Amino acid sequence: MTNVSNILELINNRIESIELKKPPVELYEPIRYTLQLGGKRMRPALCLMACDMFGGDIHGALDVATGIEIFHNFTLLHDDIMDKAPLRRGKKTVHSKWNANVAILSGDTMMALAYEYVMKAPPDVRSEVFANFNKTAIEVCEGQQYDMNFETGDAVTLDDYMDMIRLKTAVLLAASLKIGALVAGASQKNADLIYLFGEAAGIAFQLKDDLLDAFGDDEKFGKIKGGDIIANKKTFLYLKALDLADSNTQKQLKDIFQAEFSEPGDKVSLVLAIYEKLNMRSITENEMAGYYSRALAALESLDVDETKKAGLKSMAADIIERKF
Amino acid sequence: MTNVSNILELINNRIESIELKKPPVELYEPIRYTLQLGGKRMRPALCLMACDMFGGDIHGALDVATGIEIFHNFTLLHDDIMDKAPLRRGKKTVHSKWNANVAILSGDTMMALAYEYVMKAPPDVRSEVFANFNKTAIEVCEGQQYDMNFETGDAVTLDDYMDMIRLKTAVLLAASLKIGALVAGASQKNADLIYLFGEAAGIAFQLKDDLLDAFGDDEKFGKIKGGDIIANKKTFLYLKALDLADSNTQKQLKDIFQAEFSEPGDKVSLVLAIYEKLNMRSITENEMAGYYSRALAALESLDVDETKKAGLKSMAADIIERKF
Repeated sequence: MTNVSNILELINNRIESIELKKPPVELYEPIRYTLQLGGKRMRPALCLMACDMFGGDIHGALDVATGIEIFHNFTLLHDDIMDKAPLRRGKKTVHSKWNANVAILSGDTMMALAYEYVMKAPPDVRSEVFANFNKTAIEVCEGQQYDMNFETGDAVTLDDYMDMIRLKTAVLLAASLKIGALVAGASQKNADLIYLFGEAAGIAFQLKDDLLDAFGDDEKFGKIKGGDIIANKKTFLYLKALDLADSNTQKQLKDIFQAEFSEPGDKVSLVLAIYEKLNMRSITENEMAGYYSRALAALESLDVDETKKAGLKSMAADIIERKF
Repeated sequence: MTNVSNILELINNRIESIELKKPPVELYEPIRYTLQLGGKRMRPALCLMACDMFGGDIHGALDVATGIEIFHNFTLLHDDIMDKAPLRRGKKTVHSKWNANVAILSGDTMMALAYEYVMKAPPDVRSEVFANFNKTAIEVCEGQQYDMNFETGDAVTLDDYMDMIRLKTAVLLAASLKIGALVAGASQKNADLIYLFGEAAGIAFQLKDDLLDAFGDDEKFGKIKGGDIIANKKTFLYLKALDLADSNTQKQLKDIFQAEFSEPGDKVSLVLAIYEKLNMRSITENEMAGYYSRALAALESLDVDETKKAGLKSMAADIIERKF
């Protein structure tokens, strides 16, 4: 079995080998900058791990995995324009380092580049890989749209939210795994099961993100505690709290979210007090555990030698626990 | 032979059949709006005409042609954000009717949709069609970047300009024809020749655009005469005039371009006087004619029955003369 650090090295070398020092530099330099910012390369790693698990040659999936990573970075680039985010991975975002036009157009070019690499899939699975990738690309756009809608909409339900995180985050993780499996020539049944594994694990991953924002260890997580609360984000914790609370507490929570605070920390404390009262930490942990065990069940039912599942199983655990 | 109006009906019906009345409406409604704005459907028409000329079944190329039209409309949508254009085809642009975020994200989704349709090409030519389409998509982005660079850059040469219009306009027309030919099973030599035809005709088409802006009949052309001059656009006429002028006239032309005018019409008159003096109308017409005859030479050398070339030949003439 190939280990994760070998896989990451392969991926990073492949990404670095993309020829981007060419004219027009105004177009290609922001792409090079974006791909160099790093990130965990989680999606291409999952793609290669799945390919390996099903006995495929990971070199045959490397270009496709690279295409998926380019696509993911393209979505971050465009999302950062829409969110007016000044920083990404501690560095200036493209639209703040250059400008929005540069970010739009170099993003568009990255999307075309992503397709170029995805279409380097072996000929016998190329159309199927493409179909899965493209469906997912559209779903990720839909997820981003729902996320933007939720910022202004009041009538967001927990179901809406779960569907949004599925589209925005989970389906690309799931498709990365499925595509790796397809390149390895896995059966349709196994490919679908590994997708379900990724989808459920991806939702658990996002729930952990929501949880850490409220109850995480600041330094370890590297984000401001309560950032979602300050930004009035309708997370799992907020929406589930509204579902569980009595009408008084509901009103209180909504009022705090709508109010202006001179000290954002005060707002965070007030909301956290309600979350504590409603036991939101363990409720969210339970919800996460539910998705995680669904993921593991899908992995268990894969028709693959048990020993081969170990790598992906431990990687999924690491991803969800933010150790990857 | 299939006639153009049949082809246009086929294309419009296919575009209307795309299911876009679905959630999230904030994402799909702007796409529907954009595709409904119309336009001449020049690129898909060329694709089907080429397919027909080489004896292919145009129904086999219809989805690919639709994908090309979706891609073209996506580029207009994103270009309009970058250019801050309030109107497109007399209607509000997406970013002014909704907002820039909506325009970015629905554009991204259109790009994925374009790939979906392009990849409906018949399986035996799918990879080749994709490769040609994707290369072109990247070139169109490069062309748009050069166009933006030219707005601020001073050292733009005529060669730079010709390359920019080739990338921004001509290559997609050329690729539309080539892809139609590939679907019909044309030989590589014929496919390359039809590409050259489209590329040269596309450059002639853009030169005509530059010419009409300065010397066109306002009402017929439907744009403000001298719009390029008012916007300080470095067109063929401007750059060629600088090449041909003596140093005094060069300075005069540059000064007029840089100056502020309370009456834009005064600026147009002054520039046109210089263009007249330098004989720019007939010089541009000669340049156009040169590209047009290159296009026709490529068409002549196609290994196809002469009678079959008539449709495309007359369509190309109509496009360049703005009768299409």
